[in-house]
Amino acid sequence: MLGRVSTETAPTRIPQGERSRAMRQRLMEATVDCLVELGWSGTTTTVVSRRAGVSRGAQLHHFPSKQALVVAAVEHLTDRRREEMRRSAEQLSEEGRTRGVLEILAAQFVSPVFFAALELWVAARTDAELREAVAPLERRIGRETHTYAVELLGIDESQGDNRQLVQATLDLVRGLGLAASLTDDARRRSAVLDSWAAVLDHELEMP
Amino acid sequence: MLGRVSTETAPTRIPQGERSRAMRQRLMEATVDCLVELGWSGTTTTVVSRRAGVSRGAQLHHFPSKQALVVAAVEHLTDRRREEMRRSAEQLSEEGRTRGVLEILAAQFVSPVFFAALELWVAARTDAELREAVAPLERRIGRETHTYAVELLGIDESQGDNRQLVQATLDLVRGLGLAASLTDDARRRSAVLDSWAAVLDHELEMP
Repeated sequence: MLGRVSTETAPTRIPQGERSRAMRQRLMEATVDCLVELGWSGTTTTVVSRRAGVSRGAQLHHFPSKQALVVAAVEHLTDRRREEMRRSAEQLSEEGRTRGVLEILAAQFVSPVFFAALELWVAARTDAELREAVAPLERRIGRETHTYAVELLGIDESQGDNRQLVQATLDLVRGLGLAASLTDDARRRSAVLDSWAAVLDHELEMP
Repeated sequence: MLGRVSTETAPTRIPQGERSRAMRQRLMEATVDCLVELGWSGTTTTVVSRRAGVSRGAQLHHFPSKQALVVAAVEHLTDRRREEMRRSAEQLSEEGRTRGVLEILAAQFVSPVFFAALELWVAARTDAELREAVAPLERRIGRETHTYAVELLGIDESQGDNRQLVQATLDLVRGLGLAASLTDDARRRSAVLDSWAAVLDHELEMP
């Protein structure tokens, strides 16, 4: 027990499945951290495995390529981020609800996982193979965020222009996120969201 | 006259200043083309000089680094793109003017120069030196586009929420541009802009 244990050999107390999940988790978190700090080109499988404290062999076993690793990491962290959004949404009060919903949606687009995804989206624009993997993920995230926004706003999207207004809202917060990637413009963003909330309160058809 | 002429020596008929301007122009256009096709990491000064048909020496004389070249190229092409916008704006009719203005603004964010700028903005996020050069350019472009949008819409931005609504409009078209960088969603974009034009017609305080 005190000798060197190969990283490929499971210790007796922790089941293999659990170790494996924990290792994947560390790899995916390290990947998102690398993308946020070092960008697409600075994110290499070597840097990620070192940061995650996972051997190269184990990493390659879980994720055979940088592409597989990065796509899985952005997907996983986006899903986890959505759970955080759900918890924030439980705190929403009816007073100023629209503005609160916008805050939650906009927060997703200034989070580390958005900046990581941005690196991936932009790299995919000029890399056909990566785009094949990224486009379905981007569509899924887009659809889910849309459905979630409709639910939070408590509207029926078949009414009036509701559907387009929700789409516009998500395009707006995406644009705000891109602006925030270069300079911290939190005050400007807040003023824009105040106006946008007022617009939605006038323009959405509420049930 | 028939012997080899060094690229640094001006032929007799074309003035040096004009040759120099033409060379800069070719370098900047080749840079934007490279950014659009190959992305940030694929854009090297070697690839650009080959594509522009300019010697390495002449290129280094005009632009001593990749950073200098890329920042100048995005700046130059953005200014030229704005002239194209001005020409489009001359065709605007009063009927459906708001929608027409949105079309012109949104077109800027799905143009090659936007995709080139996107490469630059995203690279600058994780490169402090590049960010120093890019942030003032991004602010200038942002301010000018805002002023231009106000002018095209024919509004007084000190009235009501006009200022925030124009900002929101530019964040919206930026978000639409980012979405378009990965998949061609022209139909969706058009529907969003239709709804947004209707909203602006209700919400903007017109003189």
